[in-house]
Order: sequence, then C-alpha cells, then structure tokens
Amino acid sequence: MQVLHIDSSITGAASVSRQLTAQTVAALVAANPGAKVEYLDLAVDAPDHLNAVSMGFRTGQAATTEAERAQNAISEALVSQFLAADVVVVGAPFYNFTISSQLKAWIDRIAQGGRTFRYTAAGPEGLAKGKKVIVASTRGGVYSTSEMGQALEHQESYLKTVFGFLGITDVSIVRAEGVAMGDESKAKALESARSDIVRAAAAANQEAAIAA
Amino acid sequence: MQVLHIDSSITGAASVSRQLTAQTVAALVAANPGAKVEYLDLAVDAPDHLNAVSMGFRTGQAATTEAERAQNAISEALVSQFLAADVVVVGAPFYNFTISSQLKAWIDRIAQGGRTFRYTAAGPEGLAKGKKVIVASTRGGVYSTSEMGQALEHQESYLKTVFGFLGITDVSIVRAEGVAMGDESKAKALESARSDIVRAAAAANQEAAIAA
Repeated sequence: MQVLHIDSSITGAASVSRQLTAQTVAALVAANPGAKVEYLDLAVDAPDHLNAVSMGFRTGQAATTEAERAQNAISEALVSQFLAADVVVVGAPFYNFTISSQLKAWIDRIAQGGRTFRYTAAGPEGLAKGKKVIVASTRGGVYSTSEMGQALEHQESYLKTVFGFLGITDVSIVRAEGVAMGDESKAKALESARSDIVRAAAAANQEAAIAA
Repeated sequence: MQVLHIDSSITGAASVSRQLTAQTVAALVAANPGAKVEYLDLAVDAPDHLNAVSMGFRTGQAATTEAERAQNAISEALVSQFLAADVVVVGAPFYNFTISSQLKAWIDRIAQGGRTFRYTAAGPEGLAKGKKVIVASTRGGVYSTSEMGQALEHQESYLKTVFGFLGITDVSIVRAEGVAMGDESKAKALESARSDIVRAAAAANQEAAIAA
C-alpha cells in the first residue's frame, strides 16, 4: 500500500487537521506494516499559484525558458506522486468557507489533461481511478447538520467534486467540526473524528486485503 | 463612485474574464464620469498563500519580524483598498471547479475579524456592508442550466457565500459559460454576458444616483 500523506494547515502544532491526518496514516500503517508513506507539507512547500509560467501543461505549449522548465518539473513531480498513491490522506482545514489556497494550488498542478482526466466523446473521464481519498476536514463552526451549513461549506463538497472529476469516487471524510466553539465542543469533535478514522482506515485496509 | 477592478485570469490577452471586467468597468465609468477606478491584477501581483508569517491578523499575534511586518502591510493595503470601494468588479474564471488560488489568497487577506466581519452574540456580522460586487464568471463548460452543474460549480456559489459573510448581499453575476465549446457557443456566451453587463451596470448606476 502506497500512502500519500498531505497536510495543508498553516497553524503548525496547534492544527487539528494535522493531528487527524497523522492518526489516520498511523492506523493505515498499523494494519499494513509494509505500507510506504510519502509526506507532503503544503504549508512548508506549496507550489506557487498556477500562472502564465507554469500553465504549459494546460495549453500544450512547450517550455521555452528555464523558469517554465522548473515549474513543469514541480507539476510533474506532484502529479506523479499523486498517481503513485493507493490512498491519499488530505488534511483540509476550513479557511473562509473553503480549502486553503495552498491546497487549491496543489489541485491546479495535479489536474492535468491526459494524466488525471481526459475528454472523450461521452464526456470527461477521470484517469486516477481506483484510489481511496481520506479527507481530514476541520472546521471552527458546525456546518454538516443543517441545510444552510451544507450550502455554505465549499470545502468537503468541493474536494468530492474535484476528486470525482479525476475519477476518485471513494472519498471518506474524517471530520472534526465546531473545534472553535469551546473545549467541550472540541472534545466531542475529536471523539467523533476518531470514529471516522477507525471506519475510514478499516475500509482502506479491507480494500488493500482484497487487492493483495 | 469608487470602483475596484480585479482580474485573476492567468491567460492574459486570451482571457474572456478580462474582457468582461473591462467592459463592465467601462460601462460604470461611462455613466459616472467622476468615478475613480483602482486596478488590481492578481495574475501579476497576487499575495502569497496565507501562512504562518502572514496570519498575525487572524491570531492577534503582533508582528515581531521584518517578514511579518511586510506581509501585514500587504494584507492591510488589500483590505483597505477593498473597504474603500463602492463597487468591486471581480474577474473570476473557473479553474478546476472553483476560483483561482490567486483569488482565494486575496480573499484570505481581506477576510479580517474586526475589519470585514465580526462575531457577535447573535452570530457573525459582515462589516463590508453597502457595497456592490459584480462577478465576471467565465467557464469552459455550461454549469448554470442543470441541477448537477449547479452542484458541481464552486465558483459563483463560493463567491456569493464569502462576500455574503462579509456583509455584501448585492452580488451580480456577469456570466460567459461554454466558452470552450466551439465558436458558436462562445459567441452566444459573450452576447449573454453583454446583457448581464448592461443590467449590472445599470443597477450600480441607479444605486449611485440614489446615494448622490
């Protein structure tokens, strides 16, 4: 089992999503001692915003400058790392109703026509099939329990949309929400997330056992 | 009338959203010859991803390093510029189902507790009231005409959510969608967007006349 462990929280040791991704990866490794884990910390090492220098893989234009070649190498490394993973564990804190710009910049590098999706006569087709994604979703407030909250949040729903476009239909959520609403609320959120981790890791381990 | 004209497309002269924001601002200025326009090109001059160095305004921690002070100055300039505007025209192309990471990074700088929102006993309150936002929304495919498309798109719905949180309920959409579906589809999209521009600019001009 090849695991890609991604963090994107900018709050370092205070981050709840970092706790949750670490616990999730630990549960995967405990059940799969041979699992290989790659770690990507987007708070430390995020790709730059996709721009005119780095968008060659979108336009099909070949690189003509050193800067373009360097950016293409970054995009290529990120998409290869993503494609090599069986399980992707993504820490995705809720910043201003959606994911961090670091995580969006990563998505903009791995969404590559011909690598992770393609257009066919029957419509778009995701090419990153067969992976499992586990999203560690953390939120200061509570959004999952009301229609209004669900309409406002563009974090879990966005990640399900974009991973779905890339062909990944197996997205589990490990959720701690209401973590900024007092100690009791935070403790309850962490307890609920622990159950999510057990469930998500068990499902991933079962799939790995079937595949083996 | 103070207008803030923002572009975030990375495709330069080929950009449809840049055409639409320029046409929208021209329509505002034509009806308000005294209008002042500030221009912000996020493809050229985007703030870095919000990170541990720049997040002082979120944590309340005072800057202690030169790098922190420099980042705080960037955030302060962006939030002041936003607050000073009566009308904000935002070019928001659809990249991987949502806005560009550049535009998200700008939002992460202007969403400041005590400046553009605050928490009260009755819940959060937006502090950037009374502004009008006109979003120039461009999309390669068509998402507005089906339930499924509306569920997949996290661009217009996201911007309405986050501007609403900041107190701005008056968000008009200038939309050109299906611009990557052939010449005929693109021409129709541009024609439809031109009607949106006339409507959005007329509403802004009427409000300006009432306020004057």
